Amino acid sequence: MSIAERITALRALMADRGYDVYMVPTDDNHQSEYVGEHFKARAFITGFTGSAGTAVITKDEAGLWTDGRYFIQAAQQLEGTGVTLFKMGEPGVPTVEEYIANVIPQNGTLGFDGRVVAMGEGQALVDAVAPKNGKINYSEDLIDLIWEDRPALSEKPAFALGEEYTGESTKSKLTRIREAMKEAGANVHVIAALDDVCWTTNLRGDDIEFFPLLLSYAVITMDDMKLYIDERKLTDEMKANLAKDNISLRPYNAVYEDVKELSDSDVIMVDPARLNYALYNNLPKNAEVVQLTNPTVLMKAMKNDVEIKNIINAHIKDGVAMTKFMYWLKKNVGKIEITEISAAEKLDSFRKEQEGYLWQSFEPICGSGEHAAIVHYAATPETDIPVVTDGLFLTDTGGGYMEGSTDITRTFAFGKLTDRMKEDFTTVLLCNLRLARAVFMYGTCGYNLDILARMPAWERGINYNHGTGHGVGYLMNIHEASSGFRIAIRDREKAPIEAGMVLTNEPGIYIEGSHGIRTENELVARNGQKTEYGQFMYFEPITYVPIDLDAVVPEMMTTEDKEQLNAYHAKVYELIAPKLSEEEREWLKEYTRAI
Amino acid sequence: MSIAERITALRALMADRGYDVYMVPTDDNHQSEYVGEHFKARAFITGFTGSAGTAVITKDEAGLWTDGRYFIQAAQQLEGTGVTLFKMGEPGVPTVEEYIANVIPQNGTLGFDGRVVAMGEGQALVDAVAPKNGKINYSEDLIDLIWEDRPALSEKPAFALGEEYTGESTKSKLTRIREAMKEAGANVHVIAALDDVCWTTNLRGDDIEFFPLLLSYAVITMDDMKLYIDERKLTDEMKANLAKDNISLRPYNAVYEDVKELSDSDVIMVDPARLNYALYNNLPKNAEVVQLTNPTVLMKAMKNDVEIKNIINAHIKDGVAMTKFMYWLKKNVGKIEITEISAAEKLDSFRKEQEGYLWQSFEPICGSGEHAAIVHYAATPETDIPVVTDGLFLTDTGGGYMEGSTDITRTFAFGKLTDRMKEDFTTVLLCNLRLARAVFMYGTCGYNLDILARMPAWERGINYNHGTGHGVGYLMNIHEASSGFRIAIRDREKAPIEAGMVLTNEPGIYIEGSHGIRTENELVARNGQKTEYGQFMYFEPITYVPIDLDAVVPEMMTTEDKEQLNAYHAKVYELIAPKLSEEEREWLKEYTRAI
Repeated sequence: MSIAERITALRALMADRGYDVYMVPTDDNHQSEYVGEHFKARAFITGFTGSAGTAVITKDEAGLWTDGRYFIQAAQQLEGTGVTLFKMGEPGVPTVEEYIANVIPQNGTLGFDGRVVAMGEGQALVDAVAPKNGKINYSEDLIDLIWEDRPALSEKPAFALGEEYTGESTKSKLTRIREAMKEAGANVHVIAALDDVCWTTNLRGDDIEFFPLLLSYAVITMDDMKLYIDERKLTDEMKANLAKDNISLRPYNAVYEDVKELSDSDVIMVDPARLNYALYNNLPKNAEVVQLTNPTVLMKAMKNDVEIKNIINAHIKDGVAMTKFMYWLKKNVGKIEITEISAAEKLDSFRKEQEGYLWQSFEPICGSGEHAAIVHYAATPETDIPVVTDGLFLTDTGGGYMEGSTDITRTFAFGKLTDRMKEDFTTVLLCNLRLARAVFMYGTCGYNLDILARMPAWERGINYNHGTGHGVGYLMNIHEASSGFRIAIRDREKAPIEAGMVLTNEPGIYIEGSHGIRTENELVARNGQKTEYGQFMYFEPITYVPIDLDAVVPEMMTTEDKEQLNAYHAKVYELIAPKLSEEEREWLKEYTRAI
Repeated sequence: MSIAERITALRALMADRGYDVYMVPTDDNHQSEYVGEHFKARAFITGFTGSAGTAVITKDEAGLWTDGRYFIQAAQQLEGTGVTLFKMGEPGVPTVEEYIANVIPQNGTLGFDGRVVAMGEGQALVDAVAPKNGKINYSEDLIDLIWEDRPALSEKPAFALGEEYTGESTKSKLTRIREAMKEAGANVHVIAALDDVCWTTNLRGDDIEFFPLLLSYAVITMDDMKLYIDERKLTDEMKANLAKDNISLRPYNAVYEDVKELSDSDVIMVDPARLNYALYNNLPKNAEVVQLTNPTVLMKAMKNDVEIKNIINAHIKDGVAMTKFMYWLKKNVGKIEITEISAAEKLDSFRKEQEGYLWQSFEPICGSGEHAAIVHYAATPETDIPVVTDGLFLTDTGGGYMEGSTDITRTFAFGKLTDRMKEDFTTVLLCNLRLARAVFMYGTCGYNLDILARMPAWERGINYNHGTGHGVGYLMNIHEASSGFRIAIRDREKAPIEAGMVLTNEPGIYIEGSHGIRTENELVARNGQKTEYGQFMYFEPITYVPIDLDAVVPEMMTTEDKEQLNAYHAKVYELIAPKLSEEEREWLKEYTRAI
């Protein structure tokens, strides 16, 4: 079926079932950052394969909304499909809600699969159609009815993490969750976010791209828990272990009917930011619903000692792979053909040599030359270019290991650099160092600290249009709440920094048409001295890869900056050198030298 | 009448008029920081004269709530009065609301003068008595009925500021206010905050302590404004000028009846943080009330070029007075008898020599030795001690000039200092310098920047339990919204820093029983370069007084720190030296030398 035929088929269904407008977003049932093949409904109905976008189909119009990253790709892929591209954020372009509010007829019906729409988004759509007395039908997935060869839901097996990996049993975690429920006055807790469920059960899987998560929901009460999952994913041993903690299994999609059966006298705790519209609306109308952030969000953000030990091990392995990759690049760029994509594959091959490696922890960004100035650049066979022989090459990649996931950016220098490139590289290094040496009191938040990273760039009249850093999940989401570094305050990042949180520190500078630089280390927040004034804290960098001294201008650095960098490089050498060949080790000595 | 007799008289009135509990807070009708003599009702009924406290009287109990600053003073002053001291914040001590909720009988009545209770506080009291079905009567000032020799409301004359002082006419200000009203969809704007009214009318007065404000309210509509004021304060010229802007006069207290007459179809804009409970409750119940921060708050926080020029002139005058004072101290401490109070008087005498000086801009803090460790210390004849001959002397004072008000803290060193004193002094200096050299993008808020000031102290495991800085009013409130420097976010400080804002930078270190240090400069926020990334900003220090080099350890400072201090001191010398005697000038040269 062509795209046009698919849309015709959808319109026939819409007419048949009484929809005036049907919306197809890019999401799974859990509002995951990446989605499995089964959930790529928006790509199916429009042909646009980018990672973000929303389709809206009416009787006589079909539109796709996407953001600036994808304007070119979307225009190409939509050509000839009859789907109109709506460039989000451009002047005069209506938002999805504005468009729907405008096109829906009086008393009309807007449809969407309520499972793939976040609760708040669904409520915004209710508001959008209200002036026309519009109705919402969120209970039918029309795409499913016309998508003949739709990939099945992932059936990949789960894997369990023992306490040597998690540091805490499911039993203990459930006790803590139930304490939080008690505190909130709730007796039922409905969880839809995959990482919250996986953290609680100490299970992982391979059901969505990159993140090792299992498609599942959980309903926790004071004495039991129901896990909604395709039970074929679980071994008998896993089932027995779950049963020991009074966790019973239910079919994956049964949660939608089950929650309707909760009692009006139940007090149900849900997280409005981590729940889909259908699940929320299926809760009994008369039951009390307590809305707050899932307690698991903060619990899993604060890594325990076992997790931190493992994470550091994962970073040592990843540091070995990255260092070997850097050495290989330095030796071979300009001599053999290396492109953005082949370099990424080479890096992955170094990671694969490491014990306990699973797969890449997120979609790699490898940008050569001016491509690196495109912040969300992901090379495709069409855009792939050779790694520059005179200039900078940015790699933002990560590995998923049994001991945790990594997220690391290094920008490598080759051949002759311009002064501007070196100044920018050194500025980004300063941004990184200044944040890394923060000392702060307990209670300080990421928005309090972000200025430390930005000031060296701001002093030069330069800014980077992204956060300085985000929380990192432990073998789950690479972007994790509940803290991050950003000047603006975001709900999911506004918690104080707690000991055990792992955060990235990734300032950058991007010069369109020329070069892009980002230097990213992960930091673990640690308790420092406790005095009569309170608990003081600091960060420990746990990424162990050289920062390319070929692009550093020492004259731009203070003595303190240089000492900090030298100490960091000494640590890199100490941890990584023993795992290298003699030749690599010699080279590393040079690239971690004191300046 | 003794305190006991006053309370007996109050209880008789309470019985007579049906009150079970009567509350007397410390406030005027405008929730001003300082209040005039007329408004010191809580001091009248309890005998406690501190600046903060709330009295609650029942049939058989009388209590006073105050905070840690005043526990000792309150205990002394309440002795023998029969009034119980409730130490706020101590474990087990109920809040005023908790106490009232507990003691009020079923269906009882709580009374207070609704004019001296902030709107939010009044609503909290409504909530406190609700479980007992309690009623609130906010319309009677019972203290007024028993306070025979109560000071009249201030009758001091107003004074007008010409455009050479204000840089903007009332006409222009009203146009801007009406634009904001339009934007908010309001047609009536009720203003109760004295500084908002004074800024709008370009009038000042002497009706409350320290701040040059006029007791007044304003009701602004789209084509006129009513100014509620004792019109004897105004000259004929002022009245004529007000009339030109279509501002008519009404008696000060008439506003309470007038707002009742607003129409149900009016949309009334009020600021919940700057309105008393009585005025709010007198608004017609069916009129729409739009609650937002008065637009005048941000307008007056952003000083215009004329105001900034004047403020800098005021700071030069104040710098001359402070520098002469510092010279005088350095020459005379240990030789003649100088105490905290006599020093403050001497400083005021130097300020009085300056042209355009009005009076002190707030209650001066002069703390010698260990007294300086008490953050809100104000010397009284009972506590007054000599300025230390070996140690530190802290002065946090300010002058009100026709060109603006100043707020400056310097800590002076005499004789032999301990190493710890010098380290602490230098740390505070570093805190001050680091914030002062912030470079930031437009949109940055005070809570983003505060870490710059705190980090040098935090690195040593030390904190100061107060904000790093606050907005400063232009010849009005010394503490002004809408920005400030603090790690925590406060409603009145959370606006982005705008060009023209004047903010203090006053980090400190306080070592109980030993010494206290604070170094405070005012900063004006300025626009720096504008690049493709946006508008960058920086701070210019506008306080011109030497920072005492006798207590500085240069080895604790980076090269950049020293250069910044030296440049600052060079500026002080350049601006202040020409106004000094030859002898003072020679001395200043030494105290502003490069280190």
